[in-house]
Amino acid sequence: MQHARPLPGYLVKRYHGWKATTYSENEGWYRHLAAQGQHPRAMVISCCDSRVHVTSIFGADTGEFFIHRNIANLVPPYEPDGNQHGTSAAVEYAVTALKVAHVIVLGHSGCGGVQGCYEMCEGRAPQLEEKSSFVGRWMDILRPGFERLGPGTDAERRGALEKQAVLVSLANLMSFPFVKDAVEAGTLSLHGLWNDIGAGGLEAYDPATDSFRQV
Amino acid sequence: MQHARPLPGYLVKRYHGWKATTYSENEGWYRHLAAQGQHPRAMVISCCDSRVHVTSIFGADTGEFFIHRNIANLVPPYEPDGNQHGTSAAVEYAVTALKVAHVIVLGHSGCGGVQGCYEMCEGRAPQLEEKSSFVGRWMDILRPGFERLGPGTDAERRGALEKQAVLVSLANLMSFPFVKDAVEAGTLSLHGLWNDIGAGGLEAYDPATDSFRQV
Amino acid sequence: MQHARPLPGYLVKRYHGWKATTYSENEGWYRHLAAQGQHPRAMVISCCDSRVHVTSIFGADTGEFFIHRNIANLVPPYEPDGNQHGTSAAVEYAVTALKVAHVIVLGHSGCGGVQGCYEMCEGRAPQLEEKSSFVGRWMDILRPGFERLGPGTDAERRGALEKQAVLVSLANLMSFPFVKDAVEAGTLSLHGLWNDIGAGGLEAYDPATDSFRQV
Amino acid sequence: MQHARPLPGYLVKRYHGWKATTYSENEGWYRHLAAQGQHPRAMVISCCDSRVHVTSIFGADTGEFFIHRNIANLVPPYEPDGNQHGTSAAVEYAVTALKVAHVIVLGHSGCGGVQGCYEMCEGRAPQLEEKSSFVGRWMDILRPGFERLGPGTDAERRGALEKQAVLVSLANLMSFPFVKDAVEAGTLSLHGLWNDIGAGGLEAYDPATDSFRQV
Repeated sequence: MQHARPLPGYLVKRYHGWKATTYSENEGWYRHLAAQGQHPRAMVISCCDSRVHVTSIFGADTGEFFIHRNIANLVPPYEPDGNQHGTSAAVEYAVTALKVAHVIVLGHSGCGGVQGCYEMCEGRAPQLEEKSSFVGRWMDILRPGFERLGPGTDAERRGALEKQAVLVSLANLMSFPFVKDAVEAGTLSLHGLWNDIGAGGLEAYDPATDSFRQV
Repeated sequence: MQHARPLPGYLVKRYHGWKATTYSENEGWYRHLAAQGQHPRAMVISCCDSRVHVTSIFGADTGEFFIHRNIANLVPPYEPDGNQHGTSAAVEYAVTALKVAHVIVLGHSGCGGVQGCYEMCEGRAPQLEEKSSFVGRWMDILRPGFERLGPGTDAERRGALEKQAVLVSLANLMSFPFVKDAVEAGTLSLHGLWNDIGAGGLEAYDPATDSFRQV
Repeated sequence: MQHARPLPGYLVKRYHGWKATTYSENEGWYRHLAAQGQHPRAMVISCCDSRVHVTSIFGADTGEFFIHRNIANLVPPYEPDGNQHGTSAAVEYAVTALKVAHVIVLGHSGCGGVQGCYEMCEGRAPQLEEKSSFVGRWMDILRPGFERLGPGTDAERRGALEKQAVLVSLANLMSFPFVKDAVEAGTLSLHGLWNDIGAGGLEAYDPATDSFRQV
Repeated sequence: MQHARPLPGYLVKRYHGWKATTYSENEGWYRHLAAQGQHPRAMVISCCDSRVHVTSIFGADTGEFFIHRNIANLVPPYEPDGNQHGTSAAVEYAVTALKVAHVIVLGHSGCGGVQGCYEMCEGRAPQLEEKSSFVGRWMDILRPGFERLGPGTDAERRGALEKQAVLVSLANLMSFPFVKDAVEAGTLSLHGLWNDIGAGGLEAYDPATDSFRQV
C-alpha cells in the first residue's frame, strides 16, 4: 500500500496527550478490557455524521456500547443472499455473539443522507438514482419511509423522514430471525431515538402514541 | 413499530446530565453545527468494538470526524452493481460530498471479527462459511489478507491479520475511482492505524518500510 | 498517599451532569439531610455484587436506607472479642444509634461468594481453605448453612445455599443482644429476601412455611 | 428463623412497580447479567450512610460498580490471621477474582462513624473505648488518621478526619500484596473522593498537592 501517508502531526500530539492522561489514568480498565474481552450492554446504530456522538450524550465509558455507524443509521431488511451486508453482520454479531440487551437506533436532525433520499424520492436528484450511486442505492432502504410521509412543507417532510429512518430500521431489525427471537424471549429490547443537534434535544419513539417525544 | 421500548432510566438521567452541562456549555457550537452543517476534517473507518473510541484517543470534538464503524473496519472493493453497500456509500459521501482531507482506517487488537475470519480461513469455523452467515460473508473481504500471512503461531497470525484488515481496506479504497482521483490530485490522503487496546499503543502503517510502527 | 490517581474523565463528566440535574433539582433535600442528619427507616444488608442495587429495586430516595454491603450479605455471630468486626459495627450503629425499624437481608442468584463457599465445603477449592484466604475465612460464616443442605444437583444445592446465606445471617443477627432486645420489644423487625437477577424475581422468607416465596 | 417478618407493604408495592417498569424495560440486560456474570469496571468502598449513593452521583447502571459499604468507608490493614475480615474479603474478591480496574474510596461530610472516632480519640466517648463496642473497635482503624490532624476547631478537625478516613483506607489498601502488585503492574488504580452532601460537592485527593480538590 504505497498510498498511505503518515498521521497528521496534530493527531499524533493528541494521541500522546491521551496516552499520558486518559489512558494512563484508566490503564487498569484498558488492560481489563483487553484481557477479559468486551461485554457491552447495548448496540447503538447511529449515523456517521460528525455532529452526533452517542458516547458524549450518554456519558459512556469505553466498553459500554457496541457502535455501528452508517449513513442515516439504516438497517436493511434481512436478506441472507450470500452477499456482503456490513450492517447485517454487525447486528448478527451484537445479538448472537455479544448477546447485547438493547439495540438503540439513533437518528438526528439535519441528516445529509436523509435529505438526499428525500430529494431523490421527490425526483429532484437524478444522479442519486443511478445504479452506480452508492449513496442512492443505500438510501433506497428508506423509500418505504418516504411513502408513508404525510403532507407538509419540504422542511417538515424532511424532518419526518429522519424519524422514518429510525422506524424503518426498527421494523427491518424485526425481520432478522435472531432479533425477533431475542425480542420475543425478552432478552433484547429495541429503542428508537432522534437527536436535535442544535437544541440538544433527544426524542424517543413511543409505540403507545406512535410518536417521538422528548425524554 | 410495536416493539420499541422506553429508553432505560439510567440513560435518560445521563442524557439530562449531558444536556445541563456539556450541551449547555457548548450550546453555541451545537447551534453553529446545526445551522452551518458539518465540515469534518477526516473520515475514520473503525470497528464497532466497544473498546475502541477514536473520539477519545484523538480528543475529538463534535464535528471533527465523520465516522463509519463496521465489523473489523473493512472496506469492500469497488463494486457498483446497484446493490446496497453501506460502507461504500459512507466513503462516497465523505469523499465526494464532504470532501474530507483524510480517510483513516483504524484497526485494533483482540478483534472478534478478525478472529472469526482467521478461524474460518483455517477451516475451523464451518458455521461462518454458510451462505446465511452475515459475519462470515462480510469477513470474506479479508480473505486476501489471510492469503498473505506468513508462518507463525495462531496468535501471531491473528495479530498479523488485524493489520491486514487495515491494509486490505486501504487497498480497496484505492479501487474507488473517486478516491483514487482525489489521492492523485493531492486533495485526499489515506492512513492506516492499529490500536493495541491493553497497552494503549497506536501504530501507523509506514509504506517506506511496509510495516506498522508506534507513532 | 502517592498512589492515588485522578478520577477517570467519564466519571467527572457524569458527576457534573448529576450536580446540574439531580442535585440541583433536589438541593433542598440534600441540604436538609446534611443539616438534620440521616433518619433511615431500614438497614439493608446486601451483597457487593454489581448486579444487585437495592435502591433501584425499591425506588429508594437518598436518606431512606442505611446500607451495608459485603460478600454474600453475611452477618457473623455476635463475638465481642475486641477485634475489628465491620459488619457487627454496622449492625450496632444502625440498631442502637439510628434505631432503624427494619433490618433486611437481601441475597441473590448467581452469588460468587456463595459459589466459592459451596466449592470449598465440597472439598473442591483448597485455595479457599488456606488461612490467608480472606474470602475463604469470610465464607466460613456460611458453613452451618452448607451442613443443612438437602440432596440435589450442584446447581440446586448452590441455589439453596444462597438462601441459607440469608437465613444464617438472620439467625446470627438474633445472637446480638441489642438486636434480640429490640426485636422482642417490637421496635425492630427482621426480613429475609432473595433476588433472582435474571428473572427480576424477589422472594421473601416466610417463617410460617419455612420457605422463600415470591412477594 | 421464627423472627423474620413479612416485607412492609410499601416495599412490596415499590418492588412490583420496579418489576413492571425498570426491570421490564431492561429485562434483556438483567438476563444478560445473570447469564454472563458480572464484569464491573470498578470497586467502590463507601459508607453505609443513607445519604450517599454512588450509583446516583455517577449515573451508574446495574453491573458497573462492585460496591462494598461499611461504617466510614474504612479498609483495615492487611492481616491474614485466619479471622473474619469482611472488608478484606471484598477487596480480595474484587481485585483477584473480578480484576476490577479501579478501587474508589468515597468519604463524605457529616459521617457519624468519623464523628464517633473523633470523640473517642478526644477522650469524650468512653463507651466507644469498651472492648465490646463494635463501632469503637472498627473506628480504631482510623486512629492513625486522628494522630495526623492539625490544630483547629472541633468542626474543622472532624472534617479533616473524614478525609483522613479516605487516606488511611488508601494507605491500608497498599498493604495488601495483591493490591500493591496490581497497582505496580498498572492494572489497578486507586482513587480517593469526598462528597459534601449538602452542597453536592465532590473532592478528589490529589497526590501532587497532598490535598482534596473539587473535581
